Amino acid sequence: MPELRKDPVVGRWVIIATERARRPGNFVDQTTDGHDSNGDRCRFCHHEGLVVSMVSRPHHARTEGQPWDVAVIPFQTSFLQTNIEFKRTKHGLYDVMSGFGVHEVVIETPDHVANMADLDQAQIQVVIETYAQRIHALEKNSYFQFVMVFKNYGEIAGSRNIGHARSHIVATPVNPLHMKQKLRGTRDYYAAHKACIYCDLIQEELRQKSRIILETPHFLAVAPFAARFLFEIWILPKKHSCDFTTGIVGCEEDLAYVLKTLLVKFKEGLDDPAYNFYLQTAPFRRPDPDYKRWENLDKDFHWHIELMPRLTQIAGFEKGTGFYISDVPPESMAEYLREIEFK
Amino acid sequence: MPELRKDPVVGRWVIIATERARRPGNFVDQTTDGHDSNGDRCRFCHHEGLVVSMVSRPHHARTEGQPWDVAVIPFQTSFLQTNIEFKRTKHGLYDVMSGFGVHEVVIETPDHVANMADLDQAQIQVVIETYAQRIHALEKNSYFQFVMVFKNYGEIAGSRNIGHARSHIVATPVNPLHMKQKLRGTRDYYAAHKACIYCDLIQEELRQKSRIILETPHFLAVAPFAARFLFEIWILPKKHSCDFTTGIVGCEEDLAYVLKTLLVKFKEGLDDPAYNFYLQTAPFRRPDPDYKRWENLDKDFHWHIELMPRLTQIAGFEKGTGFYISDVPPESMAEYLREIEFK
Repeated sequence: MPELRKDPVVGRWVIIATERARRPGNFVDQTTDGHDSNGDRCRFCHHEGLVVSMVSRPHHARTEGQPWDVAVIPFQTSFLQTNIEFKRTKHGLYDVMSGFGVHEVVIETPDHVANMADLDQAQIQVVIETYAQRIHALEKNSYFQFVMVFKNYGEIAGSRNIGHARSHIVATPVNPLHMKQKLRGTRDYYAAHKACIYCDLIQEELRQKSRIILETPHFLAVAPFAARFLFEIWILPKKHSCDFTTGIVGCEEDLAYVLKTLLVKFKEGLDDPAYNFYLQTAPFRRPDPDYKRWENLDKDFHWHIELMPRLTQIAGFEKGTGFYISDVPPESMAEYLREIEFK
Repeated sequence: MPELRKDPVVGRWVIIATERARRPGNFVDQTTDGHDSNGDRCRFCHHEGLVVSMVSRPHHARTEGQPWDVAVIPFQTSFLQTNIEFKRTKHGLYDVMSGFGVHEVVIETPDHVANMADLDQAQIQVVIETYAQRIHALEKNSYFQFVMVFKNYGEIAGSRNIGHARSHIVATPVNPLHMKQKLRGTRDYYAAHKACIYCDLIQEELRQKSRIILETPHFLAVAPFAARFLFEIWILPKKHSCDFTTGIVGCEEDLAYVLKTLLVKFKEGLDDPAYNFYLQTAPFRRPDPDYKRWENLDKDFHWHIELMPRLTQIAGFEKGTGFYISDVPPESMAEYLREIEFK
């Protein structure tokens, strides 16, 4: 049975397989994704087994034999399960939890299309609506603290089957390290300024202008002031809401336009790069022995999306320190992305 | 002039080139290391220009024309410099600092040998002594808060010139995010238990035994309980000291033995993998507007080395959350490494 183990120094949770099944010969060249891209059958075109959710676009002419536009299936992994007992224990000095959790795959299209950039805007909108619907459903399981939607496009970004557009949803009973950092940062800023830091950031970016890539009625896409990665983008909703599922209501079409535009800019202007995006929404507020901090969360946290192409290798220094080096100023990144035109 | 820019949410510092010199055509396929491995002249065999430090082994028969055993040279980068004014300013909401800092390269041998594993133990000892000597020298510059020694072996680990063994020393006026996390964790543990967490960890590992890879008079090498990476190792000095330069005194030979043994185990047992190591020593205790926290640092922090081969790709989920997945239990990693025999 897999375990969640906590690093006692920094509080980082790690999902660890505890079966001693892997033998030395398997240690090298393993994959982390679990998807096999061999064979001519794509498992997302012809998926079998359990379907969590199927969504159809209204008035959309579908190819025969394709009963859905967006489908959600369980990810084939044994690391996170809900059909096990939720248990938290101590092993000497160490904290351990059962490998309780959910990993779902959102198949973004019934067609064998690799890049979300190639879906039409209305299809992307259905994908976004599916994210909201699934997060809403997962919140009902009272063991979950954290949910994240993310996307790996291209092998460097962590995708093994590179042929079919999909995204991932993971829900866990603990908050991962990066989320705790953000929660700490937004709380401290609110304590000092009685304001949401992301709301203040949006005002600052609108004033300074140089890092804006795209502005729409509901969103601002900027190259962050301290960008870690080449062409890293933050997509910030202008309207304050800590929670994606409520904040997105009425803005689905606009976000689909923003994602489509940025992803096409990546594809056309950066030579179809691998990329990741991460949807960051507030944790579910439950009693959490690991991390108590929900006061003012609705006021100080602000949902957003981080989007980054994977153009540069992260070197040892950056991995070891969390101290990134960018040899292009974010102002130049924004200028370059702004200027990419496409048909 | 490069800048240090602070992410206002999580407090991560990023080194950013502010010259708008890079043009679109340069955006793809850039390198982050700056070392060119082309050409038949290795720049570490035949380095020219400034040498920061040269160390010779006593009674060591050197090849003619090689006046040193270990040499330290400046890293050819424009990101960190000391011949500029140290300045910290605000840019609206944002914190900015001049790109003040040092990056040095420790050439570990005059011979064209790639892997530290292939140096003899006495040579590794001189490298370790050189680390201590340089950290000691850099501490004299009162602007520096942080120093780290690290090593990238192999292209995946971030090394571009893969032919000549070397390590890196970076000193900066700010503490990077990972160090702040550790400082917070060790402080909180000390506040709760009136003990150093690493000292307690050593006792716990000696009790549980299953994750010990190597024990010597002065060191314990373990697979950490919540290992992020396949065959991640922590090298922990048994004697408490927050500071490497004082803690290492009298243990240099033993640490050289530990490093040599582990690196040969990697080479022989894991098919010569790429790897990184990071020497984590306490920050220099100066007035620091960014992070005040030096009370009890000598009692609660404990210097150590993190060593990890780069056998697995980090996928999008792990990059986005800091939530790692390991499909091999650390107990199996330790067992496998313990059992690797070599001549």
